Amino acid sequence: MTQPDFDEVIDRIGTHCSKWDDMEAHYGVAPGEGGLAMWVADMDFRPPAAVQRAVEATATHGIYGYPGAHAPYLEAIRWWMANRHDWQIETSWILTCAGLVNGVAMALDAFTAPGDGVVVMSPVYHAFGRVVRASGRELVELPLAQENGQYRMDWSRWETMLSGNEKLLILCSPHNPGGRVWSEEELREVADFCTRHDLILVSDDIHCDLVMPGHRHRMIAALIPEIRDRLVTLTAATKSFNIAGAHIGNAIIADDDLRGKFKGALMARGISPGLFGMDMVTAAYSAEGAEWVDALTAYLDGNRRVFDDGVNAIPGLCSMPLQATYLSWVDFSGTGMSTAEFTARVQNSARIAANHGTSFGQGGENFLRFNIATPRARVTQAVKQLQDAFSDLQ
Amino acid sequence: MTQPDFDEVIDRIGTHCSKWDDMEAHYGVAPGEGGLAMWVADMDFRPPAAVQRAVEATATHGIYGYPGAHAPYLEAIRWWMANRHDWQIETSWILTCAGLVNGVAMALDAFTAPGDGVVVMSPVYHAFGRVVRASGRELVELPLAQENGQYRMDWSRWETMLSGNEKLLILCSPHNPGGRVWSEEELREVADFCTRHDLILVSDDIHCDLVMPGHRHRMIAALIPEIRDRLVTLTAATKSFNIAGAHIGNAIIADDDLRGKFKGALMARGISPGLFGMDMVTAAYSAEGAEWVDALTAYLDGNRRVFDDGVNAIPGLCSMPLQATYLSWVDFSGTGMSTAEFTARVQNSARIAANHGTSFGQGGENFLRFNIATPRARVTQAVKQLQDAFSDLQ
Repeated sequence: MTQPDFDEVIDRIGTHCSKWDDMEAHYGVAPGEGGLAMWVADMDFRPPAAVQRAVEATATHGIYGYPGAHAPYLEAIRWWMANRHDWQIETSWILTCAGLVNGVAMALDAFTAPGDGVVVMSPVYHAFGRVVRASGRELVELPLAQENGQYRMDWSRWETMLSGNEKLLILCSPHNPGGRVWSEEELREVADFCTRHDLILVSDDIHCDLVMPGHRHRMIAALIPEIRDRLVTLTAATKSFNIAGAHIGNAIIADDDLRGKFKGALMARGISPGLFGMDMVTAAYSAEGAEWVDALTAYLDGNRRVFDDGVNAIPGLCSMPLQATYLSWVDFSGTGMSTAEFTARVQNSARIAANHGTSFGQGGENFLRFNIATPRARVTQAVKQLQDAFSDLQ
Repeated sequence: MTQPDFDEVIDRIGTHCSKWDDMEAHYGVAPGEGGLAMWVADMDFRPPAAVQRAVEATATHGIYGYPGAHAPYLEAIRWWMANRHDWQIETSWILTCAGLVNGVAMALDAFTAPGDGVVVMSPVYHAFGRVVRASGRELVELPLAQENGQYRMDWSRWETMLSGNEKLLILCSPHNPGGRVWSEEELREVADFCTRHDLILVSDDIHCDLVMPGHRHRMIAALIPEIRDRLVTLTAATKSFNIAGAHIGNAIIADDDLRGKFKGALMARGISPGLFGMDMVTAAYSAEGAEWVDALTAYLDGNRRVFDDGVNAIPGLCSMPLQATYLSWVDFSGTGMSTAEFTARVQNSARIAANHGTSFGQGGENFLRFNIATPRARVTQAVKQLQDAFSDLQ
């Protein structure tokens, strides 16, 4: 593999890219002249060359009809899970959905009814709450506790918080935002909790590949096979390989009954995999893709250090130590400013578009989420702009 | 525009193409050595050069993240409807779904509940029945009548066939299979019927561009604006421009209340548009795309003549005159053979994979559907192989 050049600054402005082209409309931060897009969770990097070659080959062939002959695609997924995550699956367990959010929605559709409670650990990826509410389910937020500046599960408190109306729990593993890689013990506690309260467990493992050196993510399905009769694992190559535009993801379900219900939901909602997505995933889940991910996580780890060092040098700001993901979760409560005030500073003075913590649910009020998957020069620039914007606190 | 060469035979075998690569598994017809794929409704042609250029430009840029800045995409759709279909829409009426089948499913989700009746005119595109049943709705089939070898609506019979439990009618316009372009009078009768029985009218206009010379398709929304409070129009560039692999379509809804409900369904099911699809649609709905469609329909009309002349020369076979679509609906009842018998002849002797008529619902038993959107040499070959397979009837 040619060593990827993550330092290359690639102009995305004017490429129908939400992160850069929609930033001004959402945050009032214009791109160019220092405006930095650190919100939408995609990366400013090209995918592995193998992925780009696959797209170009399809583009050049020129017929973009209904995709078929799915065996190599399914085999690539099986290979990746076995080789990268020590998880032995059968290709028949794999159901393709239109991305992770659609996968969560199909799980709600398959396993819950309107009015049922759906449990999340807040703050958490905002789209969970959106689909839960839009589908008429009740969002039940279990607030994460903090310990040594990191999130931890809070079982003693949570045990008393359910009403009995809950049918399903969405686990975000690794956790977004906050970047926790849950420990084996924590994952066992999640499994026990779901068993005790008879909840379907939907594990969103979309960040499973984006783990910082020194940490190890475990697929709960591989770790605790005895909960297979209540477990749906959602994965996608879109986050790991920066191909979110393909809107493709997988539900991997060992249990026949659960899988049948999920498949029924996909059929009822007319979901089937698209051509470019399948080609890209097949190319990504490969030895070349694995090498690329290793190089990527090393680079992201470097970005993380630059960002954390710079941000934590600003009095009152504190970033959560990232064990996984490229989404830095920064606590502004130490500034004594209101949410509106620090948000305005970041957008108007530092000229950075970062996700508002409030959208992640309870406990997000004091935070902004910064996407650091961008060339290091931009991370350095972001740090500088933040330091300048908050220089009165120095 | 360079004149497209629809005569070019492009090898699709081994390109993860359902039509050619899955044919043997479904029909026992191997590709190569005369085996012909005439089932899946995509074309063996490249899209307009503008579409291919758009895909290649995205492929070359190399970052395939979340798409945004949708204005040019929406404007292209508005332009196309105004310029090709005399239908003035506002871009705010457009909601993007993951293809036509997903659009139908989202309409069922938004406007009906499990147990409700959903009306179709049979035989009709098989995916309608699939999503109706999979979503727990009741499929109500109104059988189309035949007159002069073509389908016509059968109002006097249909008027008495509803139970009162029906909430929604799916119109296929132009009709698949059978290729009818419904007349203005027929469309008015559909609107009246839906008003009389208080049905939401979902008009699937995916074949609106694929109309044979001498016929004119009318968008029911443009023709009868007074039913806007019960009308959802589904369109897609995927059929017209052979980009089905993109899984992208549009619901165009003038009424605020209906549109809000449809949007709610999209949000609840986690559906959002993909990158390649948006780029392709934007390129397709253009002056160059219009020229290409004109050239395409002229070519398809030529294929239709070759196919009809050849098939109708076989005693006992009769193809329905195609006013639109590239899907020829052939009646084998004159052979006196059973469905199993004529199907086996077509697959095993003529070595053609064609859709089984039974999958289209009531009234499809004596038919097979042949996709003639392929280079003319293949249409000629198909005719020859059919004539040989049924030579004992000569």
